[in-house]
Amino acid sequence: MQVGTLTIVGVGLIGGSIGLAAKRRGIAKRVLGVGRHQSTLNLAQDLRQIDAGFLELAPAVAEADIVMFCTPVQMIADQARAAATSCRPECIFTDAGSTKRMIVAALDGILPKQIRFVGGHPLAGSEKRGPEYADANLFQDRLTVLTPTPHTDQTALDRVQQLWKALGARVKLMNPGDHDAALAITSHLPHVVASALAGVLPPELRELTATGFRDTTRIAAGDSELWTGILAQNRTAILDALAQFGKRLADFQSALADERDATLTNLLDQAKKVRDALGS
Amino acid sequence: MQVGTLTIVGVGLIGGSIGLAAKRRGIAKRVLGVGRHQSTLNLAQDLRQIDAGFLELAPAVAEADIVMFCTPVQMIADQARAAATSCRPECIFTDAGSTKRMIVAALDGILPKQIRFVGGHPLAGSEKRGPEYADANLFQDRLTVLTPTPHTDQTALDRVQQLWKALGARVKLMNPGDHDAALAITSHLPHVVASALAGVLPPELRELTATGFRDTTRIAAGDSELWTGILAQNRTAILDALAQFGKRLADFQSALADERDATLTNLLDQAKKVRDALGS
Repeated sequence: MQVGTLTIVGVGLIGGSIGLAAKRRGIAKRVLGVGRHQSTLNLAQDLRQIDAGFLELAPAVAEADIVMFCTPVQMIADQARAAATSCRPECIFTDAGSTKRMIVAALDGILPKQIRFVGGHPLAGSEKRGPEYADANLFQDRLTVLTPTPHTDQTALDRVQQLWKALGARVKLMNPGDHDAALAITSHLPHVVASALAGVLPPELRELTATGFRDTTRIAAGDSELWTGILAQNRTAILDALAQFGKRLADFQSALADERDATLTNLLDQAKKVRDALGS
Repeated sequence: MQVGTLTIVGVGLIGGSIGLAAKRRGIAKRVLGVGRHQSTLNLAQDLRQIDAGFLELAPAVAEADIVMFCTPVQMIADQARAAATSCRPECIFTDAGSTKRMIVAALDGILPKQIRFVGGHPLAGSEKRGPEYADANLFQDRLTVLTPTPHTDQTALDRVQQLWKALGARVKLMNPGDHDAALAITSHLPHVVASALAGVLPPELRELTATGFRDTTRIAAGDSELWTGILAQNRTAILDALAQFGKRLADFQSALADERDATLTNLLDQAKKVRDALGS
């Protein structure tokens, strides 16, 4: 896998990690970054995540072979449409957004014919933000989901798949709706649950938390604007996931209230089996 | 702080860590362990957590200066009453149970006069079990709560406090009911929430989980019998905590359903502030 120019729009934890891995592994001849703040671009350049930084899309995508959008999900479709007016024919667009259905619907078969879009989502990251937290091995042995549709160009899909494999990831293909329904359970629901849990802790009880509370609420430290965007793009699936979770929680609640301790053990045991199967 | 003979009843992660720290730091001249399985006692002895192991309480507590109960919460009161018939006058009993109200009520002022009981709870541990996971620094800079009552002997309280400080812990005094109400929020609620969350993950979505789901559900891997005991000893406070959590979750749910995204951002932001304040 060799890319001539890889342009990364949004040089944060994810974008910076892609740039760092692409440069260290010799995947791209040149990595360009687009950001809103010159200071962030300078930092990303100092950290060897990008070769040059741009505050504007047009000059950064003009010579790109692949443009990777790593910005908040609600910005991706607009930025891709804007970038499409400035890039070369045959340029491939892809993204790293946590939701896929709305982004793909806004771009798939709608961008100018010569631009080929492939939706993507690396299942990696953290509650941290910014290029200073980038990690060249962030994607190593982790899963990246790509969400082709009947409109997706096969060559573009192959190239994006090769790019992620070269970055160290395993790749799985799903349709955008299935991706969003699955991630509603595996990522968006945990975020809401962790945030609701953090929300009930009064300041005077902080000193009485230990690793359990900290682990369970860790992702609640994620950026609130970023997560509002994600939740808003996957409302229905997340509401379904919340309903399932609420039902399960009610099972615990009634077993506890009715002193049905065998049921409680059974519920805890089912959860333990699931968690044990995930590994550490 | 010097203890002649420290007897640890229940040599698992917590008991083993106490023994290991007590021996490494020269706090106890002799550490005796009580367990149900000879193999576990042998392992704890091989790992230098105890000097000798016993399958029976009576011989293990006969010469003890301090007896520390580290068994599941529902067993502690019965074991303490049994041990009281075999130990020396002036022996101090204490425990490391995750709930305090029922244990203290069952022992405080009820044990033979010469036995002095101090309830305790080190806020440390993990979802792992057994002496193989013991850690001599498990309590270092962590909080241990002691729950004296008007019946508690001041000298015994001082000794137990000194013991925990020598093991590396900070000590906080609370009354048993306040302890249980606080831990319902900071420890027991997260356990139920993490377990309910793990319970909604179908096997086919396992590969689509990342660190967020894993962190949020980590404690669900805890032992189900152990946790049934804890939940059963603190039912009312946990049901109150679940009601608070349910209310908070409903706020997220309605903001999401009604597309009140500013409210969503506000809720996420409140959670982020709480989590940021806890540190990593």
